[in-house]
Amino acid sequence: MEALTSFISQITPQIAIGASVIALVYAVILIIIILKRKDGSAEMREIAKAIQEGATAYLNRQTMTIALFTIVLFIVMAFVLPQGKHNDGVLTAIGFLVGAIFSTLAGYIGMSVSVRANVRTTEAAKNTLQDALSVAFKGGSVTGLSVVGLSLLGVGGFYFIFTRYLGIPVTDAPKLLIGFGFGASLVSLFARVGGGIFTKAADVGADLVGKIEKNIPEDDPRNPAVIADNVGDNVGDCAGMGADLFETYAVTLIAAMILAASTLSAEKVQNGIQYPLMLGAIAVIATIIGTFFIKIGRSKKIMKALYKGMLITGLLSAIGFYFANQLFIGDINIFYAALVGLGITLFINIITEYYTSTEYEPVKKIAKSSQTGAGTNIITGLAVGLESTFLPVILIVVGILLAYFFGERSILGNGIYGIAIAAVAMLSTTGMVIATDSYGPITDNAGGIAEMANLPEKVRKNTDTLDAVGNTTKAVTKGYAIGSAALAALVLFQAYSEELHISAPNQQFTFSLIDHRVLIGLFLGGLLPFLFSSSCMQSVGKTAFKVVEEVRYQFSSRKGIMTGKQKPDYKRCVDIVTKSALREMVFPGLLAVLAPILVGFLLGPISLGGMLVGVIVTGLLLALQMCTGGGAWDNAKKYIEEGHFGGKGSDTHKAAVVGDTVGDPFKDTAGPAINSLIKVINTIALIIAPLIATLFI
Amino acid sequence: MEALTSFISQITPQIAIGASVIALVYAVILIIIILKRKDGSAEMREIAKAIQEGATAYLNRQTMTIALFTIVLFIVMAFVLPQGKHNDGVLTAIGFLVGAIFSTLAGYIGMSVSVRANVRTTEAAKNTLQDALSVAFKGGSVTGLSVVGLSLLGVGGFYFIFTRYLGIPVTDAPKLLIGFGFGASLVSLFARVGGGIFTKAADVGADLVGKIEKNIPEDDPRNPAVIADNVGDNVGDCAGMGADLFETYAVTLIAAMILAASTLSAEKVQNGIQYPLMLGAIAVIATIIGTFFIKIGRSKKIMKALYKGMLITGLLSAIGFYFANQLFIGDINIFYAALVGLGITLFINIITEYYTSTEYEPVKKIAKSSQTGAGTNIITGLAVGLESTFLPVILIVVGILLAYFFGERSILGNGIYGIAIAAVAMLSTTGMVIATDSYGPITDNAGGIAEMANLPEKVRKNTDTLDAVGNTTKAVTKGYAIGSAALAALVLFQAYSEELHISAPNQQFTFSLIDHRVLIGLFLGGLLPFLFSSSCMQSVGKTAFKVVEEVRYQFSSRKGIMTGKQKPDYKRCVDIVTKSALREMVFPGLLAVLAPILVGFLLGPISLGGMLVGVIVTGLLLALQMCTGGGAWDNAKKYIEEGHFGGKGSDTHKAAVVGDTVGDPFKDTAGPAINSLIKVINTIALIIAPLIATLFI
Repeated sequence: MEALTSFISQITPQIAIGASVIALVYAVILIIIILKRKDGSAEMREIAKAIQEGATAYLNRQTMTIALFTIVLFIVMAFVLPQGKHNDGVLTAIGFLVGAIFSTLAGYIGMSVSVRANVRTTEAAKNTLQDALSVAFKGGSVTGLSVVGLSLLGVGGFYFIFTRYLGIPVTDAPKLLIGFGFGASLVSLFARVGGGIFTKAADVGADLVGKIEKNIPEDDPRNPAVIADNVGDNVGDCAGMGADLFETYAVTLIAAMILAASTLSAEKVQNGIQYPLMLGAIAVIATIIGTFFIKIGRSKKIMKALYKGMLITGLLSAIGFYFANQLFIGDINIFYAALVGLGITLFINIITEYYTSTEYEPVKKIAKSSQTGAGTNIITGLAVGLESTFLPVILIVVGILLAYFFGERSILGNGIYGIAIAAVAMLSTTGMVIATDSYGPITDNAGGIAEMANLPEKVRKNTDTLDAVGNTTKAVTKGYAIGSAALAALVLFQAYSEELHISAPNQQFTFSLIDHRVLIGLFLGGLLPFLFSSSCMQSVGKTAFKVVEEVRYQFSSRKGIMTGKQKPDYKRCVDIVTKSALREMVFPGLLAVLAPILVGFLLGPISLGGMLVGVIVTGLLLALQMCTGGGAWDNAKKYIEEGHFGGKGSDTHKAAVVGDTVGDPFKDTAGPAINSLIKVINTIALIIAPLIATLFI
Repeated sequence: MEALTSFISQITPQIAIGASVIALVYAVILIIIILKRKDGSAEMREIAKAIQEGATAYLNRQTMTIALFTIVLFIVMAFVLPQGKHNDGVLTAIGFLVGAIFSTLAGYIGMSVSVRANVRTTEAAKNTLQDALSVAFKGGSVTGLSVVGLSLLGVGGFYFIFTRYLGIPVTDAPKLLIGFGFGASLVSLFARVGGGIFTKAADVGADLVGKIEKNIPEDDPRNPAVIADNVGDNVGDCAGMGADLFETYAVTLIAAMILAASTLSAEKVQNGIQYPLMLGAIAVIATIIGTFFIKIGRSKKIMKALYKGMLITGLLSAIGFYFANQLFIGDINIFYAALVGLGITLFINIITEYYTSTEYEPVKKIAKSSQTGAGTNIITGLAVGLESTFLPVILIVVGILLAYFFGERSILGNGIYGIAIAAVAMLSTTGMVIATDSYGPITDNAGGIAEMANLPEKVRKNTDTLDAVGNTTKAVTKGYAIGSAALAALVLFQAYSEELHISAPNQQFTFSLIDHRVLIGLFLGGLLPFLFSSSCMQSVGKTAFKVVEEVRYQFSSRKGIMTGKQKPDYKRCVDIVTKSALREMVFPGLLAVLAPILVGFLLGPISLGGMLVGVIVTGLLLALQMCTGGGAWDNAKKYIEEGHFGGKGSDTHKAAVVGDTVGDPFKDTAGPAINSLIKVINTIALIIAPLIATLFI
């Protein structure tokens, strides 16, 4: 047993690398299978191509913009950060660069597959619901597997290189990984904000003129913003979400490893550091197996099919975790902590589904309140959003208590490590979560293509059925991401505190609530998500306004568009949204990057510590409110469209459309971007900790 | 000099009592002056009487409900709390009872005067704008002076009795005052929630049927909910607001005194404890003088007149503070800390006016966005609300830093005492702030009476002019209350920590952010304002729905109402709102009272400490967002009604009405009640601190 443990421990980085390579190879196989599917008529291909080109063009320009930030930060980090024992500054900067590149790559892969799977899903929807789901879900799986594969490859690969080739001791290696995490966070921040502004500005802009002024349906080819709208699904919901979870996954792993390195005792430290990598490797394989089980059963319930895949992944992961735990830790308590993490994933799914599915009370309540107009729809939607923070927070609090308890009671005697392991376990099934999420935008697009190509009603019905579930899975993913972000960020905060202690060993860093510097930090950190989301929402408003103007102009200058005799200029709309989204993402991006640097250097490490926790607390609450509330509004509209309270076209429906419009920037721009905000601030703090450790103390 | 200091110090409680009696006597004089004014025609008197009766009936029943809670808590406190050296438990319980009674009394006085000043203001508006302002402002002054007078009387009186008659040492007396603060907080919580639900449910309900379905103007006598709407102004905006500031004022004074008692050195402690009382006494007199200066100048700008009164009060207070400081503390730094508090009041006025006045960018931006519909109006309004937290938080952070700095640098060497003095100074001008606020509902009512009694256009124009400014002053008051609440609550939290230390001297209570118990507390505390405001908003929705049903029923069952031949049954609407508001206020009330008790006893004093700070941080942000955002929405509608973007009746206006409907429960129910929520939780924690000090440590 001991020999086995020692052997496995020696090859853990290689196992992680191997598992990630398997995931990436499987993703390539899936891509080949998808590309072999029929891609429809010439008309369908033409529409798909327009979406493809728009999405690629946007992503290219977004990448250029982010690259500028990345290069500047890379140079600053390489020169300004202390080099320590192992060229720390340079290695962190290199990690940062690779993290940014890998994250970008994952976004590109996901987006490229999405814009090809969409039209093939439309084609498959001509056959059966199951066939359409199969193509769309394969597309989603590619995104999921490439995100997790590249993320695990990055973390495992760097750890391997640091410890084996550069001969850095295992306890020093983890904190050099934070550069990789920061690179991923930075890209995720911009991708979430830029993509989020793009997708919602195009969506809202298209709807305001198309649906409300011109009374033409969604995805009508006469609407000049329709391609921009479909591009948005890919760059926001697919590429943005991918970058977000890439970052969440990587940062959680890294945070757990850093914490292990700085707090575990010598004989346990190597296994403690590598255990998270092992959990990641196991869950990736479990995810691949889980994807085979996603098939629509006799009940025809899609959500049930998705749950089945998730449960099998979770179950297989748990079994694998048990054996890994016996080998690496040898104390069942740490396994229990991992189970807590898996449990949080399960319950957050159930809670979010309750709040956003058309089958339960909250969504019905919003739909019902729409009968008395848009005002009451909004009041109820806001109230539901505010209330929807309750159960997830209780869940996270219980999770923290249990994970801490198990960690404390284990032979490691380390409660925070228990929390870290719970976070890693929670995040380990990310691949599956992404797969169930990002099949959503594919079906959304597929429906759009069906509409634009005037395909028979049946096709659209199949894609619509898949899309409706997509609203809930999207909300679930966001709840999952933000919930895990809270745990991961807490671990990062602990790592920050340890790092300060290492940099200034004679100082005590207690971060007491009685200390006014901590309180100031809490206020400033608490403020950030408010300011940040305000900026995101105003950007959506501004950009949507430009879209509205352009669409109105096209309708009035080309009278033939409405009669179908003239083609609208789709490209101009895509261009306008692209330019505006890229310009608008700069302020919130700078805010996130500069806030911790300013507070750290002007008010010192204690206030910065307060800020980190402040941004976690209000960020978690605000993001939950926005993501869940937005999803509920969207589905309240869908519920009415199903024929309740007067159905489509009624005054009740019009009121619900207003709620949906408000919910859009909530759930797809501001809310999910808060997740990246939290992590960027925490990783920056960790990186600058050595520089500010002795300021104002 | 020393002899003078010693003499003044000896009679400080008496000075405070004297000043409060002067304020109360002056309030009585104002009442007499108001009652001597003409109260209009028989028709006007009849309308005013209906409002009077409705308001009195509601307040009576609300008082009965609160009395139940109060009596139960009184008994529990008297028996459960440890009796300590001086029958602490019994004295705290008695203080609690008197606090609740005084607060209720202040509410009654304010409300009774409001419902008499309203019709007299209508009558005066027949003459001139100045005359109308004079009556309305006198009415507001009565509320302001009786709130501050009773509050200062309570705190000063109890302190006098405790130290002089019961022979309790000055250092032990302050913490026995917390019962008085808790009584005030409890009443304020219920008054804010109940009154807030009442006023907004009636308002929204009346508007939804009247304005939107029946197309009749606001305050039209044919609307069966019109009296309920006007009653709401009095029980919510007047009585509720009065109870809120009564509590804020009392708790701030008490918190500062407790902090002084537990942290100042022996030779400075008595003066340090009594200094807040002295500041209160000075500012009350300054307030009375300031009210004489509120007159409309040649520019006819009402806001300018109000600012003049405020500035003079602030200036006179500052001068008085200087001399008091030289006598009591003898170190200019503490005077500077007081100036910081006055400065915060000034700047919070300016910031809130910027965000809510029709003259500046934010309101115009909302109005402009209404052109593309209700959806963009709501998105922009929410964004403005979120953004409006920025400057106040920066202001408070800077205020904390400066006040701490001056406190630290003073001979007291106590930074937190600096913050406490800043909070007391900030709150000292409460009387003036209330006066400028609560003249608002009086003019609102006056306008309603003018409308209902079919008075000439000129009258309504005069009252409307006054009312428009009321929206901004109302927002200012809320910003002021919530800003000061953050400071006061921080001082309460310090007092909580000291109290734990006294109860368990062998324990260290550090409340470190690294401690997972603190983090859990922060999450749970942060959650409370979200859950609480969700509940408040849903209550408004539910109650408004009932009003809509009743109004629709009356319109359909009595066809003569619309033609003016039949009178609607106003009383039934008042009854429905009364019952529903009282029922709905129970859950949020219980939530606020039980949350700290449950967390304290189940998770221990460390988690409770985290909860206190958590509720302050998110409470401050959420309340600012809701109050300022709501005010901005309201005035965006007013701005459009002034003739911009299409004016009254246009689609743009309709979109703005939706925003106003959403803003109503934000700014008048959920937002301001958070202030009471924060204080109730903090005072309860302070009271139960001795009981939980040793749990789970």
